[in-house]
Amino acid sequence: MQKQKLVINGERLQQELERFANFGRTENNGVTRLSLSEEDRRVRDYFKACCEEIGLSVKVDDMGCMYATLGGSEDKPPILIGSHLDTVKKGGRFDGVLGVVTGLEVVRTIIENNIKPRIPITIVNFTNEEGARFEPSMMASGVLSGKFDKSAMLKKADSEGITFEEALKASGYEGEVENRLKEASAFLELHIEQGPILEKEALTIGVVECVVGMACYEIEVTGESDHAGTTPMKMRKDALFATNNLINEIRNHLGTLDEELVFTIGRMNVYPSIHTVIPNKVVFTLEARHKDMEIVSAVKDFVQSLPHLGVGEGCEVKTTKLWDRDTVWFEPKICDMLEQSAESLGFSHKRMVSGAGHDAQFIASYVPTAMLFVPSINGKSHCEEELTTWEDCEKGVNVILDTVITLLSKS
Amino acid sequence: MQKQKLVINGERLQQELERFANFGRTENNGVTRLSLSEEDRRVRDYFKACCEEIGLSVKVDDMGCMYATLGGSEDKPPILIGSHLDTVKKGGRFDGVLGVVTGLEVVRTIIENNIKPRIPITIVNFTNEEGARFEPSMMASGVLSGKFDKSAMLKKADSEGITFEEALKASGYEGEVENRLKEASAFLELHIEQGPILEKEALTIGVVECVVGMACYEIEVTGESDHAGTTPMKMRKDALFATNNLINEIRNHLGTLDEELVFTIGRMNVYPSIHTVIPNKVVFTLEARHKDMEIVSAVKDFVQSLPHLGVGEGCEVKTTKLWDRDTVWFEPKICDMLEQSAESLGFSHKRMVSGAGHDAQFIASYVPTAMLFVPSINGKSHCEEELTTWEDCEKGVNVILDTVITLLSKS
Repeated sequence: MQKQKLVINGERLQQELERFANFGRTENNGVTRLSLSEEDRRVRDYFKACCEEIGLSVKVDDMGCMYATLGGSEDKPPILIGSHLDTVKKGGRFDGVLGVVTGLEVVRTIIENNIKPRIPITIVNFTNEEGARFEPSMMASGVLSGKFDKSAMLKKADSEGITFEEALKASGYEGEVENRLKEASAFLELHIEQGPILEKEALTIGVVECVVGMACYEIEVTGESDHAGTTPMKMRKDALFATNNLINEIRNHLGTLDEELVFTIGRMNVYPSIHTVIPNKVVFTLEARHKDMEIVSAVKDFVQSLPHLGVGEGCEVKTTKLWDRDTVWFEPKICDMLEQSAESLGFSHKRMVSGAGHDAQFIASYVPTAMLFVPSINGKSHCEEELTTWEDCEKGVNVILDTVITLLSKS
Repeated sequence: MQKQKLVINGERLQQELERFANFGRTENNGVTRLSLSEEDRRVRDYFKACCEEIGLSVKVDDMGCMYATLGGSEDKPPILIGSHLDTVKKGGRFDGVLGVVTGLEVVRTIIENNIKPRIPITIVNFTNEEGARFEPSMMASGVLSGKFDKSAMLKKADSEGITFEEALKASGYEGEVENRLKEASAFLELHIEQGPILEKEALTIGVVECVVGMACYEIEVTGESDHAGTTPMKMRKDALFATNNLINEIRNHLGTLDEELVFTIGRMNVYPSIHTVIPNKVVFTLEARHKDMEIVSAVKDFVQSLPHLGVGEGCEVKTTKLWDRDTVWFEPKICDMLEQSAESLGFSHKRMVSGAGHDAQFIASYVPTAMLFVPSINGKSHCEEELTTWEDCEKGVNVILDTVITLLSKS
């Protein structure tokens, strides 16, 4: 089959993204569409109607994942395009939904160009990627890939005590286990970068080679609470000053390991947090991410050495590993195709890593997978200011379309 | 009048302290007796009954302060002995109540020795010293001394929305404005040290020369929230790392100002405090205390310079003064008397400062005042572990008695 040069309809893409954003749009032009909420149910109905309108068959699996398929002339595993439709609270208009609408726009373009694909094309909406209502994130793709236990996931409850299972049934999107994604020729997920790199380097397309490995720890520093006015400095066991010493050590050590290493102390609680009382406990998280698992291992070794480091101030240090994950490498052949598509379309591009987690990292365990990034203005996401230009969205979808055409043209 | 050598009844003192601790005793042998609570009402009833049993007249002022007076042969301003009966939540058996029971034991000893005092002796219980239920602390003594506005204080509400005024009326201890303490010959407040110095130096008696001056600030560091996985280290505006830099500066500078300076970062909140999000804001308190107001001024100058210091990490610093107070010096003549009493009784002693606030610091503005400290085991207070040995309590009360006798014997 000869590869055809097609382009998507940028105006239609923009209109569709705006229409999807109406489901849960906030007053500051963000979106709140928590998984299996009323807004999520309505956006699913709308997505289903869009797919059925162009003749796709829509199936739903037992985790609520939606699969809208354009049949192929050969009975082969489909090319999968998609992402997720849920958002965090006061999230943006691009995270997730862009990947799903990409599938819709690619299939629409194929259909209106009268192309009968050789193999099926399936648009996928994975349930509860964000984990904002029901932890953990990437819940459905985690169950599909065997990382998470379904029965445990069903019991996960939101802040009001409603379980995932109850919300799933109430949504009307509890489907059949036999509809689960089993095999596919490829999975392509277009996503916003959620970081500042493409914008800072004035590039349009990021071909994502991997989702980086990480380790996340909780570190507890314990001292002793005493009266802030009556306890001489030399007689204190100040857990906050000890934490200050510890953070100096952490920054000095991790800051020189590798310039691509990112590490963050995101959550911190000080106890009892009263201005007249010397803190007796500080608990904080330390997470670090890098594509090279040897670097991640070096971080782990360092963190495990912290209790023995001698933090000073008469305080003690305890570390607990919350979780870790290995780097997930995407399928190099698909990365090559995406890169060639970007190149042939004349879009500036680079290979990069994903520091954030995505459904693609779980699906990659049994489907040849790759991701594509488009720039996030100011690197912002998970907030109402989240923004990617319509032009960049269009370019990203065109790269996906071009790669789909390439995949269809392969023997 | 010839000075007589009297000693108190140590066994009775111990029994009385234990009896007072029954009003609100916790399962771990601490006390919860919040101001104007049911426990406070009952301990007031008991205190009143004890005073009336030995013939004292008990009056209550419009802030609920109780005054139990043993008449004197001359119509002169009384010698005042006392402190407060309220405690913090899960506080100890000594903070405050020791000073009130001291008054009771001193008067009991005087009466049973058939001494007719020349001038009246008044035992005082100041309402709401702790400020644990209704902020601010030292509320009633603050109103008496004109530091606080009464009408504003009446409106202060507890965590359940009950105002001080409502609680005062409900307690039955709203008295008359004309009963307020107006003038007194002296005010003696025996209190536990609430710090580790006397114990560490193996001393029994601390003659308190002053309540140290202080300044308390809220410091806000603002950066920018970004995704912990996708934002390279060099592109971050991490408010927590900036705070770490700032705390290093604060410790380096204040740590070398003067070895008697105490400074504390007690309250700290990190925002949004999510492990995957780079903090965009950290708010913390910094308070510092020293008897020499030049040192306190140097601290203030330094804190005010912090926004211009350049904290790094692309972050900004804002400082807000929450409050400050000048050092309150106690009456040197009374300090001398207390010291001479301790010396004549053969108790080890030293001059010291109070790092904590006490009713005495407000009363000192219009009454010749001094305080006496006895050791706190491990420096603990405001907790159930608060402990002062019965022997030290007894010695402290004997010093107060001796000084009262001295005051009575003066022309």
